[in-house]
Amino acid sequence: METQRRLRAGIVGGGRGAFIGWVHRLAAELDGQALLVAGAMSSRPEIARESAAAWFLVRAYSSYEEMARAESLDANGIDFVIIAAPNHLHYPVARAFLAAGIHVICDKPLALTVAEGEELVRLVEASPILFALTHTYTGYPAVREARELVRGGQLGEIRKVLVEYTQDWLMQPLERGGNKQAEWRTDPARAGLGGAVGDIGTHAANLLEFVTGVRIEAVCADLTSFVSGRGLDDDASMLLRLEGGAKGTLVCSQIACGEENRLSLRVYGTRAGLEWHQQKPNTLTFKPAGKPWELRRTGQGYLSAHAHAATRTPAGHPEGYLEAFANIYRGFIEDVRRVGQGQSPLGNYPGVKDGLRGLRFIAQSVASSRAGSVWMQL
Amino acid sequence: METQRRLRAGIVGGGRGAFIGWVHRLAAELDGQALLVAGAMSSRPEIARESAAAWFLVRAYSSYEEMARAESLDANGIDFVIIAAPNHLHYPVARAFLAAGIHVICDKPLALTVAEGEELVRLVEASPILFALTHTYTGYPAVREARELVRGGQLGEIRKVLVEYTQDWLMQPLERGGNKQAEWRTDPARAGLGGAVGDIGTHAANLLEFVTGVRIEAVCADLTSFVSGRGLDDDASMLLRLEGGAKGTLVCSQIACGEENRLSLRVYGTRAGLEWHQQKPNTLTFKPAGKPWELRRTGQGYLSAHAHAATRTPAGHPEGYLEAFANIYRGFIEDVRRVGQGQSPLGNYPGVKDGLRGLRFIAQSVASSRAGSVWMQL
Amino acid sequence: METQRRLRAGIVGGGRGAFIGWVHRLAAELDGQALLVAGAMSSRPEIARESAAAWFLVRAYSSYEEMARAESLDANGIDFVIIAAPNHLHYPVARAFLAAGIHVICDKPLALTVAEGEELVRLVEASPILFALTHTYTGYPAVREARELVRGGQLGEIRKVLVEYTQDWLMQPLERGGNKQAEWRTDPARAGLGGAVGDIGTHAANLLEFVTGVRIEAVCADLTSFVSGRGLDDDASMLLRLEGGAKGTLVCSQIACGEENRLSLRVYGTRAGLEWHQQKPNTLTFKPAGKPWELRRTGQGYLSAHAHAATRTPAGHPEGYLEAFANIYRGFIEDVRRVGQGQSPLGNYPGVKDGLRGLRFIAQSVASSRAGSVWMQL
Amino acid sequence: METQRRLRAGIVGGGRGAFIGWVHRLAAELDGQALLVAGAMSSRPEIARESAAAWFLVRAYSSYEEMARAESLDANGIDFVIIAAPNHLHYPVARAFLAAGIHVICDKPLALTVAEGEELVRLVEASPILFALTHTYTGYPAVREARELVRGGQLGEIRKVLVEYTQDWLMQPLERGGNKQAEWRTDPARAGLGGAVGDIGTHAANLLEFVTGVRIEAVCADLTSFVSGRGLDDDASMLLRLEGGAKGTLVCSQIACGEENRLSLRVYGTRAGLEWHQQKPNTLTFKPAGKPWELRRTGQGYLSAHAHAATRTPAGHPEGYLEAFANIYRGFIEDVRRVGQGQSPLGNYPGVKDGLRGLRFIAQSVASSRAGSVWMQL
Repeated sequence: METQRRLRAGIVGGGRGAFIGWVHRLAAELDGQALLVAGAMSSRPEIARESAAAWFLVRAYSSYEEMARAESLDANGIDFVIIAAPNHLHYPVARAFLAAGIHVICDKPLALTVAEGEELVRLVEASPILFALTHTYTGYPAVREARELVRGGQLGEIRKVLVEYTQDWLMQPLERGGNKQAEWRTDPARAGLGGAVGDIGTHAANLLEFVTGVRIEAVCADLTSFVSGRGLDDDASMLLRLEGGAKGTLVCSQIACGEENRLSLRVYGTRAGLEWHQQKPNTLTFKPAGKPWELRRTGQGYLSAHAHAATRTPAGHPEGYLEAFANIYRGFIEDVRRVGQGQSPLGNYPGVKDGLRGLRFIAQSVASSRAGSVWMQL
Repeated sequence: METQRRLRAGIVGGGRGAFIGWVHRLAAELDGQALLVAGAMSSRPEIARESAAAWFLVRAYSSYEEMARAESLDANGIDFVIIAAPNHLHYPVARAFLAAGIHVICDKPLALTVAEGEELVRLVEASPILFALTHTYTGYPAVREARELVRGGQLGEIRKVLVEYTQDWLMQPLERGGNKQAEWRTDPARAGLGGAVGDIGTHAANLLEFVTGVRIEAVCADLTSFVSGRGLDDDASMLLRLEGGAKGTLVCSQIACGEENRLSLRVYGTRAGLEWHQQKPNTLTFKPAGKPWELRRTGQGYLSAHAHAATRTPAGHPEGYLEAFANIYRGFIEDVRRVGQGQSPLGNYPGVKDGLRGLRFIAQSVASSRAGSVWMQL
Repeated sequence: METQRRLRAGIVGGGRGAFIGWVHRLAAELDGQALLVAGAMSSRPEIARESAAAWFLVRAYSSYEEMARAESLDANGIDFVIIAAPNHLHYPVARAFLAAGIHVICDKPLALTVAEGEELVRLVEASPILFALTHTYTGYPAVREARELVRGGQLGEIRKVLVEYTQDWLMQPLERGGNKQAEWRTDPARAGLGGAVGDIGTHAANLLEFVTGVRIEAVCADLTSFVSGRGLDDDASMLLRLEGGAKGTLVCSQIACGEENRLSLRVYGTRAGLEWHQQKPNTLTFKPAGKPWELRRTGQGYLSAHAHAATRTPAGHPEGYLEAFANIYRGFIEDVRRVGQGQSPLGNYPGVKDGLRGLRFIAQSVASSRAGSVWMQL
Repeated sequence: METQRRLRAGIVGGGRGAFIGWVHRLAAELDGQALLVAGAMSSRPEIARESAAAWFLVRAYSSYEEMARAESLDANGIDFVIIAAPNHLHYPVARAFLAAGIHVICDKPLALTVAEGEELVRLVEASPILFALTHTYTGYPAVREARELVRGGQLGEIRKVLVEYTQDWLMQPLERGGNKQAEWRTDPARAGLGGAVGDIGTHAANLLEFVTGVRIEAVCADLTSFVSGRGLDDDASMLLRLEGGAKGTLVCSQIACGEENRLSLRVYGTRAGLEWHQQKPNTLTFKPAGKPWELRRTGQGYLSAHAHAATRTPAGHPEGYLEAFANIYRGFIEDVRRVGQGQSPLGNYPGVKDGLRGLRFIAQSVASSRAGSVWMQL
């Protein structure tokens, strides 16, 4: 692959009214390394056409199957595809593009069921095609710094973890008022087994495992649908046990009145603690035993190389969600170029196995809660 | 009782090296309404004498039994006694002073066991003698404001609660290094069934019930002793179910590296949420649905009368832990004066029944954890 | 101009080693409405060529004069030019592109001197060509909300303003250690009369006037070069008087050890106050008299249309500096499209007159300080 | 003087309706080392009597002259007097008690005029009698830690200082609505030359000099009375020059809508910066060059002995304004005991010379502003 051009990207989903597709477009292009040129943006042809025009796409398709076929045959076809369709489509769309030999970057969750997830793991592992999953929050530089602190032993042995992701956008029954986002996200057929647990609980679990490098071993969960008539949970409280003996809690909620997107992580070890809040993303608080708390700020020279590689501006220029998202793309695009040049990929982004862990987390949280809050192994 | 004098107080415990006795002395005297004049400050006579002299006490006793007897016979005897001895003494000392007809204000927990607690409830209810329990944190003006907001219906129906009390002072085995506080607090014989759960978890549970006005119905707990060899838990994670259907978590830990005294409460209802942090005590964050968060500050004119009654200075003059502690005394002393004048007490402070709830909370948390994290009714 | 394509942009400056050029590229392209295709990125041909290749530019020039000429003759030439070269080039480059009939978006300050600035005002006002100046901080949604609050009368009559922009990046003599940025920014020939006053003081002054809608009438300034041998000020303290009677201070410093990019604004009126911090950009604190402070958050439904138009994600997804920068471009690009379609421009971005005010602010601050801190009219 | 008793204190001022007298009472008694027994609490006999009764004073006087005389002759007379009357009485009351040989602790400002202040300096220096001035904010442990950091050279050479004290309690003409506090504080005859400058500006100036150990050399001030008809300034902005070359600003205002008691200090040196906010008093932010910010918390083991000596509880138990006030008393009472035992005083509290500097600060700020903001030496 020549290096002297922007990569060409395609998208499935993201048509008018969607939110996350637009974020994918922006994140993919942010560093000037890729350009969106093709899309199957909606299953409704009119919307697919209009949406593609609004984004100045060169090639608009009315189905992802057609897109996969056509792009794989085109010498100037896309270098990778973005899957930003509702959850139930992740699996078939991913299969189609993997089969077409086109690299895939997919929104989370990986699929609807653990079985689908396992199938995708098999397909990806048996193929040279790249697969990335946009667990956005691992793209924040402060989160990467947190992982480096743990890896470097600065926290000692981990004892206690507290992770949370709370929102309030589903505190009313929006799904009965015509909100498309709310409709499919509360519909088991399109969203999967988990409501809040699937939509945001998986982010929290992934963030925890990413930073600590330790797996959640078991969950003891209490899921609730506070909004009556809702088909999926909109709130969950869980006890966690981690490999190695650490314990903690995971809380996720979409009915926490007044909260926007309160994702936070705290980790306490034998030597230090750390704390991070997604809504103040450029600060990582480090708490060494017996010493003052340190506010570690993105962009500062004392941070690790991994954190620096995820920062675009000098310290004091706040970076946020879109830049974090773009950092997932940065790693993925780097690998697309690498494999295009015959190099092995670096894998600096969440992948298909993280996706499978997320599906197991959803399944076992739901199972634990249904059984009356009993410990379930992940 | 004449109103034109400061009340006379006595203390059991608080001898040299103790912490909380000194806080009781200060809190009792803060408003200029009482003066400490008598004490049985230590079971070691020398320390009892020295400690009493250091505090300029008029009458020093070498045993609480003697003190109860002598003071009850003295026309100028104490108006009330402060119990600030280790946990295992709360029950016998309280019995002694209740029997002597002297009002009691006691540090928490109420006693060592639920049985002792039930006995004290019986004794207090059968007697005209006042009994207060120093659940300090209910003395903060912002906490009282929080309760008023809930009472006034401004949160709507409560759905979710998150309460936490984390520290790190026991992250090392201090009890094996000569630290007296750590010794008795990690010794089941003197501290009771609960370690972190008893020492600070009860504060968290009490705060939650105080603010919401709703009882914890059941707990599903996971207790741990992270420091090896420790006889009691130093960490706990719990799922909570409240009467009326709210759910949540309670976390307490004494091994959370870097935390000082991180007590916080969040309550989410159908109309608003609220948040309070003990280490920033003068701000209560109120989160009405769809509107900006409000920072409600102690001392401001827009607060409730209950909050104002717990504030001593204009807004912007930070008040803290000692003033909160003194607010428990303020309510208790008011009642001592009232019953001295033949009026009925107002009871603006935690009492013997709150103490019994705390003992049940400890017992059932321990039982839940021992059974492998099963739901236990409180 | 057809609407169904991304606009074509060119850049002057931004070659390897520069910071702000890269930000311009990203900001110009962020919304998918423009693409950088041409550039005269350095006066050193090799670097110009390499830099253009690194950005995948289609047309690389070795001089801005050549670029202006060639692009104006090309039917597929650029729709607008970005000026991201050092300060002393702003004036000649702007002249060249204005003369070539190409819309200009220029980094601040507008020029080196008030005379140059006045000449540019004349040129722009006599021409149909658009001119934008990237006073980035006016692009933040919370800043636009602040302006709306003032405009709507919610602050009442403004009495007091406090504006600050402090950093520490020049606390050491970096200009003597090979730092290119530091070299030209501390060199009067390339940076102009003002050091900190010009580089960041102008941002502070512009932010203040933008939000309040009131002009700074006079300054009484004390400028200092704390790093010995430095040719320009690296610190300034100023008293301000505003039209209409408000008073206040402006502080800017590049030697404030530990500060990153601490730009903040506070405005106090007869009915309310407001406060904003660039490093926590998504929160605007509103302080109505006698009521709780409100935390107004970007993305929330209660904000003004102007604030919403500057936000890309739902509340709780932090946006930052790059998005603010892109908001300046968003307004400018909208106008480029409008005038291309024969519509009149809306001017939702700082322009040449703001630039001239900035130059006067620099000149009078320097004059005030040289005269021993005397009031100088702006 | 025997050590085995609480000291006996008297008070002048503090009668019903006053604020600060009550704070003095509480602060004097907080540590259990003194007890208020006598007072001339009001010039109105009825109020004097009632106020003394409400505080359980043993001896109530109707004039301070009588009190000074009687107490000096009484073998069980007071050990020290608290002056908490309006400003214009500080000088005559202080003279009377100094003449009576009774130690004095006086609210600030020291007197009405520089001449009065100089006279008091002469009197105190010529006498063995102790004199303390309650510049409360120097009593905060974090402020003392800040001073130790500067003293220890951890900030290097100081370059820039920013100090502020803003409130809003006088943003309306309360003095015309019967508010006693507002009446005398806006009346030149009782408050002195300065309004906001005298009431709170002096606190800011004192805090700055206390922490930095460097004197303000000159001020360039702009004072305003925003509330029409007010006889004294209610707002001031100042440029500062410090001995040794540091520069900065001092802002004080009583019309800053929404602010409670926003006293803050920032100091920037060649090696580090520091920041403290009175409303979050238990945290001192330390900003070493090129390293993470440190949050230094009161009560932590890593703090200096001076900070520890000003703390009463373990870290995480917030202490506030009343405890800071009591720390001034703690130092003063220690000295009263010391001189009573023939030891030399330690002087760990502000004194008569600090008071004189405050009066000069007021006088020169007013003079600078009247002359049109010219530099005036202090």
